[in-house]
Amino acid sequence: METVSTAKAFGGTQGVYRHTSTSTGTDMTFSVFVPSHEAGAMLPVVWYLTGLTCTHVNVTDKGEYRRACAELGLVFVAPDTSPRGAGVADDPAYDMGQGAGFYVDATQAPWSQHFRMWRYVTDELPALIGSEFPVDLERQAITGHSMGGHGALTIGLTYPDRFRSVSAFAPIAAPSQVPWGAKALAGYLGPDRAAWRKHDAVALIEDGARVPELLVDVGDADPFLEQQLRPELLQDACALAAIDLTLRIQPGYDHSYSFISTFMADHLAWHAERLA
Amino acid sequence: METVSTAKAFGGTQGVYRHTSTSTGTDMTFSVFVPSHEAGAMLPVVWYLTGLTCTHVNVTDKGEYRRACAELGLVFVAPDTSPRGAGVADDPAYDMGQGAGFYVDATQAPWSQHFRMWRYVTDELPALIGSEFPVDLERQAITGHSMGGHGALTIGLTYPDRFRSVSAFAPIAAPSQVPWGAKALAGYLGPDRAAWRKHDAVALIEDGARVPELLVDVGDADPFLEQQLRPELLQDACALAAIDLTLRIQPGYDHSYSFISTFMADHLAWHAERLA
Repeated sequence: METVSTAKAFGGTQGVYRHTSTSTGTDMTFSVFVPSHEAGAMLPVVWYLTGLTCTHVNVTDKGEYRRACAELGLVFVAPDTSPRGAGVADDPAYDMGQGAGFYVDATQAPWSQHFRMWRYVTDELPALIGSEFPVDLERQAITGHSMGGHGALTIGLTYPDRFRSVSAFAPIAAPSQVPWGAKALAGYLGPDRAAWRKHDAVALIEDGARVPELLVDVGDADPFLEQQLRPELLQDACALAAIDLTLRIQPGYDHSYSFISTFMADHLAWHAERLA
Repeated sequence: METVSTAKAFGGTQGVYRHTSTSTGTDMTFSVFVPSHEAGAMLPVVWYLTGLTCTHVNVTDKGEYRRACAELGLVFVAPDTSPRGAGVADDPAYDMGQGAGFYVDATQAPWSQHFRMWRYVTDELPALIGSEFPVDLERQAITGHSMGGHGALTIGLTYPDRFRSVSAFAPIAAPSQVPWGAKALAGYLGPDRAAWRKHDAVALIEDGARVPELLVDVGDADPFLEQQLRPELLQDACALAAIDLTLRIQPGYDHSYSFISTFMADHLAWHAERLA
């Protein structure tokens, strides 16, 4: 692992790191904030998965998580959204290919060679974070935005014993049922919709996945709310499954980091309570 | 004035606006955050002047000022650092020309045609802000970073009756005495150093400018500290002039928004006390 940059922030260290990933077969870059802590302390960690077109940079610059993480003693990890580079398959559309990995292991050409983001985010990167940073892997939480909210929900529902808490900002709640998700899942996983279900939060819940509770915020001025996010489908699935979903429709907020940063400290405090 | 974008953030509105400036003879873009407020209320305003290479975008994305401004009821205005465009003089160096206006009215060709940032920031833009936003121009404060810290100090010292409080992050405290400032002031104002003095905070104080107090933060890991910022010269000048300077050398912090964002809320709270 190579250190790209570090800077002191809110008493802790905001770093950017790069490593060669065996999952994706590419170099991958991610950011980690480590708050000030006592020597030898092992801290709880919050994973933040970001959205379409983004890298670790977006939330690192605009997420406003450092003050809360410093106060709450949380490590904050932000991976990239896909493999990248000249030798990596891509698509001219913003919602497919580089910047749009959808947190799946692709099975379809040309994506299957490098697009192994599920494996990367759930296995390889946690092992690296556990070995290189002062984190307690018994105390993990996960959140994310939009495509990354989809990733957080599906990963959280798949590994309920690993994550003590799961939240999302404006997640793509039922990707199989919306244009962004149907395009990506068909492209990466092929036309058989059965293979999509473990990458769809609503389908996972329908198929029996359980977590005790979820926290989801969505803005009612989010232009993607009705066509792409569809939190009401998550609400219905959680009601049937007796999952305690706190779904907050935030009046006036859009899909941007203006929305995310506003509610970031809320989410971090909610996770910190469950990671204590 | 044209609205480029608005987004709800922390209960208020983060906007970006554009207008045709008579000072610079160009279009100018700036950002304004207006917190939630009662109808008809007129709010105190904090001006933030940004540094070399920056536009309004840097602090708007990375400054982390919105939470504090929302809590304290402050409007936050971030202008650009220079005129811009194909017809505007420029220099290949990052520290001269577009992105590097140094908050002066240039008297030297080719800069004098458009580089009239002093007039823009002290006269034209305040009038526009006063007419278009719910601000109380009797309650203004000013701050800034690096080149913008220089701008905040020189403008604050020049208009002590206008600004109730003046602070700076890592300011170029004595531009006449450092490479960045000597290059820019010579380029924009010509070789006669007498003309530089009203654009040099230390010289202004030596020449009799007074404010009751100043707040300045600088990181001791700032790579520009010794050669370009030289806060000790400001300290000496303030001591002789009986200006109550709070100069905080922050251990481990660099020149970036990691530093600025860490201490932004401190500065805003300090200003809010004086704007109450």
